[in-house]
Amino acid sequence: MTHLLHDELQHLKHILLRMSGMVEHAINMSVHSLLDNDESLARKVIESDHAIDMLEMEIDEMCLRLLALHQPVAIDLRFIIASTKINTDLERMGDLAVNIAERALYLIHKPQIDAGIDLKRMSDFAQKMARESLDALVQSDSMKAREICRSDDLLDDMNRQALTLLAAYMENHPEAVKSAVHLLLITRHLERIGDMATNICESIVFMTEGRSIKHHAEEYG
Amino acid sequence: MTHLLHDELQHLKHILLRMSGMVEHAINMSVHSLLDNDESLARKVIESDHAIDMLEMEIDEMCLRLLALHQPVAIDLRFIIASTKINTDLERMGDLAVNIAERALYLIHKPQIDAGIDLKRMSDFAQKMARESLDALVQSDSMKAREICRSDDLLDDMNRQALTLLAAYMENHPEAVKSAVHLLLITRHLERIGDMATNICESIVFMTEGRSIKHHAEEYG
Repeated sequence: MTHLLHDELQHLKHILLRMSGMVEHAINMSVHSLLDNDESLARKVIESDHAIDMLEMEIDEMCLRLLALHQPVAIDLRFIIASTKINTDLERMGDLAVNIAERALYLIHKPQIDAGIDLKRMSDFAQKMARESLDALVQSDSMKAREICRSDDLLDDMNRQALTLLAAYMENHPEAVKSAVHLLLITRHLERIGDMATNICESIVFMTEGRSIKHHAEEYG
Repeated sequence: MTHLLHDELQHLKHILLRMSGMVEHAINMSVHSLLDNDESLARKVIESDHAIDMLEMEIDEMCLRLLALHQPVAIDLRFIIASTKINTDLERMGDLAVNIAERALYLIHKPQIDAGIDLKRMSDFAQKMARESLDALVQSDSMKAREICRSDDLLDDMNRQALTLLAAYMENHPEAVKSAVHLLLITRHLERIGDMATNICESIVFMTEGRSIKHHAEEYG
């Protein structure tokens, strides 16, 4: 690998980390806007999405330029291809934060729903998955990445449980159906943030080990 | 471009088309399993997903091999990068078809919900977007791809309308809340199929014109 390519790959890693920091912050703000009834925080998430979108395009262009100029092979090639995929997943996590913030704006002015859902636990878990997937990326740690993939099942369970609780709540509180539907969709957005973290971790394993664990081609180890 | 690279890119295009044919078929079956109360059709969708997953991995490996062996530039490089992204979007469309089929299996045995949603129209529209995005890919037709991106707004409107109708229905039919929630999530899966078609079309424009129309960097027109 030339020094120049090495420097450029380091630069790419730094920009991916900047992107992931922005996305993590957006998720965190979106959940807190809901838990703390903070309308201005929700609006901040929506406003900050443009910067995430712009950075996504910048990263994609950077990857393409690196491929065209340096014609990398082996792990460098896999790192760049993984970066374009991780970039897409991060941007979609940002969109999910916006979706949560938009629903929070609706819910903030409605009576609170007490359906027994531990939204804080669910969102902490989704955020933890997102944060740790990015740690695994920085450290090129495929063991950690596999562990995060496995943990996604727990978030899926929480989501199914939330659906059951919210359906029961709606049956008994028809006046709160609209709010409950928004809350239901928020739990789905959180579950999808976990899916995106899983995608990122699959890309990390592919990048570091040169083999795919998607679709449980082998079990997560 | 060498003859060999030309042949390999043609081969990649054919395999992407095979993938898209399988995905289109899965979407079509999933919607019909619901509309026609056909349980065996729903099970077929779920069973056929493994083949789509395997093909996704094959396409990804093929793209990586082409990049490593031929070190393509310009439009060939963009075509391969776009293919990896389109591949991911197609696979997720396949997953959405599975999600629809799973909910259909629940709904088939429940009393029908008459909330005034034109599910047939919505699913026809989503399928049309999926089919036309793949036509645009075969024909490398960026004009058509832009047109499909624009049409996604209509599907989003249908989805919002479905949410309003279903919330009203649940308020008046608490006994049917669970079924209505599954139906609501089906309309969201259809809307996300439209989103995936939009992603594919954005990749086509990028591939043919070398510029991004993501995030409305310029308007679609």
